[in-house]
Amino acid sequence: MSTSRDILQALLRQGSGDDMYDLVCELFPVCRSISGDGVRATLDRIANEIPLTIHEVPSGSEVFDWTVPKEWNIREAWIKDPSGKKIVDFADHNLHVVSYSMPVRERLSLAKLKEHLFSLPDRPDWIPYRTSYYNESWGFCLTHRQLEALEDGEYEVCIDSTLSAGSLTYGECFIEGETEDEFMLSAHICHPSLANDNLSGIALLTRLGKALLSVDTRYSYRLIFAPGTIGSITWLAQNKARASRIKHGLVVSCVGDGGGPTYKRSRRGDVDIDRAVSQVFSDFAPAGEIEDFSPYGYDERQYCSPGFNLPVGLLERSKYGAFPEYHTSADDLDFVSPVNLDFSYNMVARIVDLIETNWSPVSTLPFCEPQLGKRGLYEAMGGDNQRVDRQMAMLWVLNLACGNHSLLDMAERSGVRYSLIREVSDLLVRNGLLRR
Amino acid sequence: MSTSRDILQALLRQGSGDDMYDLVCELFPVCRSISGDGVRATLDRIANEIPLTIHEVPSGSEVFDWTVPKEWNIREAWIKDPSGKKIVDFADHNLHVVSYSMPVRERLSLAKLKEHLFSLPDRPDWIPYRTSYYNESWGFCLTHRQLEALEDGEYEVCIDSTLSAGSLTYGECFIEGETEDEFMLSAHICHPSLANDNLSGIALLTRLGKALLSVDTRYSYRLIFAPGTIGSITWLAQNKARASRIKHGLVVSCVGDGGGPTYKRSRRGDVDIDRAVSQVFSDFAPAGEIEDFSPYGYDERQYCSPGFNLPVGLLERSKYGAFPEYHTSADDLDFVSPVNLDFSYNMVARIVDLIETNWSPVSTLPFCEPQLGKRGLYEAMGGDNQRVDRQMAMLWVLNLACGNHSLLDMAERSGVRYSLIREVSDLLVRNGLLRR
Amino acid sequence: MSTSRDILQALLRQGSGDDMYDLVCELFPVCRSISGDGVRATLDRIANEIPLTIHEVPSGSEVFDWTVPKEWNIREAWIKDPSGKKIVDFADHNLHVVSYSMPVRERLSLAKLKEHLFSLPDRPDWIPYRTSYYNESWGFCLTHRQLEALEDGEYEVCIDSTLSAGSLTYGECFIEGETEDEFMLSAHICHPSLANDNLSGIALLTRLGKALLSVDTRYSYRLIFAPGTIGSITWLAQNKARASRIKHGLVVSCVGDGGGPTYKRSRRGDVDIDRAVSQVFSDFAPAGEIEDFSPYGYDERQYCSPGFNLPVGLLERSKYGAFPEYHTSADDLDFVSPVNLDFSYNMVARIVDLIETNWSPVSTLPFCEPQLGKRGLYEAMGGDNQRVDRQMAMLWVLNLACGNHSLLDMAERSGVRYSLIREVSDLLVRNGLLRR
Repeated sequence: MSTSRDILQALLRQGSGDDMYDLVCELFPVCRSISGDGVRATLDRIANEIPLTIHEVPSGSEVFDWTVPKEWNIREAWIKDPSGKKIVDFADHNLHVVSYSMPVRERLSLAKLKEHLFSLPDRPDWIPYRTSYYNESWGFCLTHRQLEALEDGEYEVCIDSTLSAGSLTYGECFIEGETEDEFMLSAHICHPSLANDNLSGIALLTRLGKALLSVDTRYSYRLIFAPGTIGSITWLAQNKARASRIKHGLVVSCVGDGGGPTYKRSRRGDVDIDRAVSQVFSDFAPAGEIEDFSPYGYDERQYCSPGFNLPVGLLERSKYGAFPEYHTSADDLDFVSPVNLDFSYNMVARIVDLIETNWSPVSTLPFCEPQLGKRGLYEAMGGDNQRVDRQMAMLWVLNLACGNHSLLDMAERSGVRYSLIREVSDLLVRNGLLRR
Repeated sequence: MSTSRDILQALLRQGSGDDMYDLVCELFPVCRSISGDGVRATLDRIANEIPLTIHEVPSGSEVFDWTVPKEWNIREAWIKDPSGKKIVDFADHNLHVVSYSMPVRERLSLAKLKEHLFSLPDRPDWIPYRTSYYNESWGFCLTHRQLEALEDGEYEVCIDSTLSAGSLTYGECFIEGETEDEFMLSAHICHPSLANDNLSGIALLTRLGKALLSVDTRYSYRLIFAPGTIGSITWLAQNKARASRIKHGLVVSCVGDGGGPTYKRSRRGDVDIDRAVSQVFSDFAPAGEIEDFSPYGYDERQYCSPGFNLPVGLLERSKYGAFPEYHTSADDLDFVSPVNLDFSYNMVARIVDLIETNWSPVSTLPFCEPQLGKRGLYEAMGGDNQRVDRQMAMLWVLNLACGNHSLLDMAERSGVRYSLIREVSDLLVRNGLLRR
Repeated sequence: MSTSRDILQALLRQGSGDDMYDLVCELFPVCRSISGDGVRATLDRIANEIPLTIHEVPSGSEVFDWTVPKEWNIREAWIKDPSGKKIVDFADHNLHVVSYSMPVRERLSLAKLKEHLFSLPDRPDWIPYRTSYYNESWGFCLTHRQLEALEDGEYEVCIDSTLSAGSLTYGECFIEGETEDEFMLSAHICHPSLANDNLSGIALLTRLGKALLSVDTRYSYRLIFAPGTIGSITWLAQNKARASRIKHGLVVSCVGDGGGPTYKRSRRGDVDIDRAVSQVFSDFAPAGEIEDFSPYGYDERQYCSPGFNLPVGLLERSKYGAFPEYHTSADDLDFVSPVNLDFSYNMVARIVDLIETNWSPVSTLPFCEPQLGKRGLYEAMGGDNQRVDRQMAMLWVLNLACGNHSLLDMAERSGVRYSLIREVSDLLVRNGLLRR
């Protein structure tokens, strides 16, 4: 229970949209994948901002049904045309190479080469993002205009990569609260130069981590920065017994653009995190859309697998896969903005604030209404609309304060916004009318 | 269970809309407040009609979080203009004085006087109704035309009132039934010359009391006539342990005008009284509106406080606060009518009838359908629509008579009106097909 | 559980719409009633197709609240006009005689005769169908044109029937499955020359019985061919203790016309059979209408009586009583068709298939997602829409495979059609990812 401190204001004071955008810009050029030095560089940069425990899990480790893959690193990659001119170069854009491509150095005809080339005919100026984690192959991605300009002849390709025993790297920032119960937030860190998906999520959680360090919280917070799928699976495998401490969780992804917001409910569908996001949307982002759980998406798939069934939802702006820039070179630094990042951060701060301040009060005077007037709590109903709203909120809180209703329940039943319910419940606590 | 007696007809035979209207007229001029001789006079008049236990609770008594206030009485009150002419006089209309005004006798300027005057600029011919129970002050209410006609100069004001140790007065009429379980109906008696709010409720409960005395009932009935808020709080404080006997309850207010009807559900929201009113509305008052509980309104606020959480709803015609005449001199004897009072009484009688006759029958022949034909219960389906409806009702009752469904449940599930469900269940009891 | 066998295909391979229509044609001329040789002839014909146990229950036997009536048989019946000419003859159409008519042989005036005549003024060319099972009388049905052509004079009537101690006859076909749990299907056999009501149901269940004999099933199947009302009551009286073995049931009636389909839910309203029909309708008969249980209709009234409360619904095409041909000579061989019978059979086969194949799988790898890729189960998401659908279906099944969700639950929650849920669950079982 937090009745007097103002967590939301403290969270909002910390950092800014510009800070988050600067971090996105700084990390944008790094070539990340589900393992390798790009991931390490990214985690090191985050560790400059917040205390981060970095885990290295050796290739070949068994994590539930999965095996940690070989580590992938890449130094250079290019295609030379028949005249010897580099026409596609990893140095220009790290999306040019299919992630986890095997090393290759050979000469081949255009026809043969084309079996390894990927483009977007509908978006002729954009480079697609492709991966080949679990079957060994190689390939290049390029704009469709580049592809169409290729002339017959013998080409030379070079991918100077290594795919070898190493480790999977992930980071976590644990911020201890009053209780062992955890609020977990998770961002994937495996995408190369894609700004919204998911440098935006990385930047948001980094700012949140700094902010949480500045406040006392009831919950302990766990921020997980891990490669998609294999990373969250690895975390869950290493924390199987402890996972039940997670009482609320959010996967945060694609939070830098101006769409949405969109929330996908947890598998359970009616847990506090689901209902908290709904309250925050109706207060702060009324255009927000909430959809039911489905078992496709980001790492909520793992957190919500039947053996864990954790109360974890997915928060996004535009929905993954549903915006044209998704998984292309157009998901760049122009696609995200400080103001959008800041709005998303604000939403997450409000969700955290709601979860932190939610509790189930018990009236100290449950028989009949307390006399608010003699305590100066009951002003004339006429006139000031805000005053009337506060008084109705007070009456609702007192009426439902039988210990069976949380503030969130009260907001839902009364239609009074959560922030006002919370404000008047603080006032009633100060006046001795509510207790735990 | 009541299968053969016809409570509804007995209740409707007693009294009339004219009787109720006459009582409203007789009580209209009395100056009531939350205490004082006007309340006593009102209760004495009711006691002429029904047996009434009148309670006097001394000023200063603690009732939960509240204290019974000083008793207020008033003899005269007026304003004289600079020429010495009485321009506002309590003798003309008891709304002219703010209820619970302190005694005052002084001369003062128009500017000073205006700090104590209340009018309705939007309704320039109506006198507002104002009270000041819990902070000591004085004031006059007048029409806006009166206010605007006031000229500069020295005015003289007189309020010959007393505010001193005395008692709070309330009455209750208890009518014993077959069981200790109670149906409670409550009306507030603290308003001066306001006809709808709540002389209408007083008159309706008085008629109901007389009528209930003429029938045998399963429930015991408790009719409470008490000042708003402090009166019901006092009753609950004096009957804390016994309050749980109340199985159904209605606060009855503003039942003399032609609006609505309106019903506000109990805090629990799905108890028998809530569902009974819904059935009666759909049968008898299809324009009726039902709204969810909210913790603002009349004495249901106290009955539905979390410590009691009694199954008590609020029945009105026009909703309090939502009709222009509310709490003004326009809530007068023209605003209510015998026919409207009678319709409201009829609704309450039907609610009582439903609650009285509701029970959960058990089929004596639960395996397959009983053969209705050999008992003369199953006429040819063709032809007579009423006959078809009765046969469907019989089939529904027999099909649901497993002891888990009340007649009210059956009416809700089948869509057959309650009165027909009850009629055929009586018939089936007489034929030995249903038992308790 | 049935994961590999394909019950639906096996059921559909057996018989055809033409077979069913031929059986309807063959049985159409037989004069059936709730007892008598017409019923026996009908059951004998069915017994040529499927193994049928035929029960004879003596007149006068007590079956719950009912008594097995006297047996009725009829040899000839006619009306001769004043000139001695047969103007109405049972030999022309068996609907001409009111079923269960007492024997009569007398001369009487037209006025007296008319007390025993029934016609349909709105449908002047159709003969109505009338019965008089439980009060002893006699009568003739004729077209309204015939009735209007009657001239004054003395008529002679002859009904050469017997109503005497005998027995009630019904048949049942029991097909043993892996378990004692039963799927019961019931058709009434008491109607004379009416094709849709219910020779269609008789033909459908006969074909289904033949088909079920050709497959191994998890449930045992019980097909009941019995006179309406008294027949199902007799069956229930003779099988009271065993009735609870019925886990799913359908009354099948009026399934040969082109209307509907219509399904009336069981009294419980949300049992598997109710939900299975809903799935089959949305997949296969999207125009199908589903209505809530009501205690009027066919033999579901008995199966769903409160003492039994069996999970039995009613499946029809056009709803009984709601099509003009209902209970008239227009419910003839032109009113039903092979294609409509076949469509209805197809629906029932799909319902059986769904119920047979429904189970609640448990994931063998509930912690995080299994790695579908390494098992060749997880193809690239791009391209083929069907492939995407199958993969989503797989993800849903794995996500919900905690043992608390049946395949039917999964189809309902995911919106994926049942057949695909079932198909991928079979695949996942074969891959060792699901177990009981």
